[in-house]
Amino acid sequence: MTYCVGMKLDRGLVFMSDTRTNSGVDNVSVFRKMHSWAAPGDRAITLLTAGNLATTQTVVSRLEERSKAPGDRSPSIFEVPTMFRVAELVGYTLRDTIKAYNDGDDRNETFDATLIVGGQIAGMEPRLFLIYPEGNFIEASDDTPFLQIGENKYGRPILVRAYHPEMSFEEAIKLLLVSFDSTLKANLSVGLPIDLSVYENDSLRLTPGQRIEEGDPYYRSISTGWGEALRSAFESLPPFEF
Amino acid sequence: MTYCVGMKLDRGLVFMSDTRTNSGVDNVSVFRKMHSWAAPGDRAITLLTAGNLATTQTVVSRLEERSKAPGDRSPSIFEVPTMFRVAELVGYTLRDTIKAYNDGDDRNETFDATLIVGGQIAGMEPRLFLIYPEGNFIEASDDTPFLQIGENKYGRPILVRAYHPEMSFEEAIKLLLVSFDSTLKANLSVGLPIDLSVYENDSLRLTPGQRIEEGDPYYRSISTGWGEALRSAFESLPPFEF
Repeated sequence: MTYCVGMKLDRGLVFMSDTRTNSGVDNVSVFRKMHSWAAPGDRAITLLTAGNLATTQTVVSRLEERSKAPGDRSPSIFEVPTMFRVAELVGYTLRDTIKAYNDGDDRNETFDATLIVGGQIAGMEPRLFLIYPEGNFIEASDDTPFLQIGENKYGRPILVRAYHPEMSFEEAIKLLLVSFDSTLKANLSVGLPIDLSVYENDSLRLTPGQRIEEGDPYYRSISTGWGEALRSAFESLPPFEF
Repeated sequence: MTYCVGMKLDRGLVFMSDTRTNSGVDNVSVFRKMHSWAAPGDRAITLLTAGNLATTQTVVSRLEERSKAPGDRSPSIFEVPTMFRVAELVGYTLRDTIKAYNDGDDRNETFDATLIVGGQIAGMEPRLFLIYPEGNFIEASDDTPFLQIGENKYGRPILVRAYHPEMSFEEAIKLLLVSFDSTLKANLSVGLPIDLSVYENDSLRLTPGQRIEEGDPYYRSISTGWGEALRSAFESLPPFEF
């Protein structure tokens, strides 16, 4: 599996993804699940992927190839005019890839993947979408300001409780790392390193992504500190009485 | 879905289950998922059920009926000599029920259920088992001292972090309520009221089960308090620095 989150804040977007892929339990590898396209001053777009690796790599390669052939009849991710159209383009590409692998057979879920795509195009609001294997999608809103794909359950309770839209990027990253740490502790199929990317509203450029490795001292302080903080939070609650 | 946990402590066993059942999202009901059999001084056994309600009710009815016909050729839950044999009996009953519903068709998962059974028989150690739809089972141990069935992911991180075997029953119940609250907050298919039962080692009798209802003041103090405690635990962690 995988765990990826895209989060919408008042000041921008934050993306985080793990890097573990596995086929069964004995074919475990590290693959990047975060990809981005930027034309500074015009647009900055980030994509997170979960699901069948052959599918997600093909989707990324197709988006890449098309972005390098602007003369092509179908518009590239650098040419579509709105973030909604970016989501449509990514959705079509995903659906067509899955369809091709299924080769006319009845739809099965082996080749499925789910994606998060977010970013901003000059003159418009930043937007964040979750794209299903069928190619359709939903958008993050004030009521549902973060989108998760992959192994999303373990890390959800802390997001639900601690998120607020005015958070700084630093706080949001801390929150995401706690959510990732809860997931890593509970599920072998999600693993370090973690990729992190931040998009500041109206900057229209990508800040360099960061990779948080196994021995990262901040991650370790969060992981250990959260265990201790949770235990003392737990101890602070009143005891049950029979 | 459902959420049930059986937990093994140094001083005994604790069982907790929700009561929500649903067929789709619009046929939601309250059903008890905790059942018990006791012959004071000889044995005390508790069963938790998750999965297809027709299956789990049939399993419980069959165990009940057999326990009232001691002359029958197959031994009842009151007659089998060990907790291992109790788990076998429950496992066979579950497997046979699912098989009968499948009616010779290829095995499908519609009628599946998963169970937790635990308790003690005079002269032996208390034991706790998780029983799969196939009728086979695993046992809780020092390394894996709690067993979850149903919607188990949301509530797992806090169990992993805060459990310790020397806990008092009061602490263990508090911990389970936090785990249930995280699950209820994140998943509509798990709902109040919550059933609770405690078995004290070597007591060989069941203490009366308790039901925690919607308005229960202790549950509300845990639910609100945990949200606040989590947020301050989160704030106590060092901020991320770019």
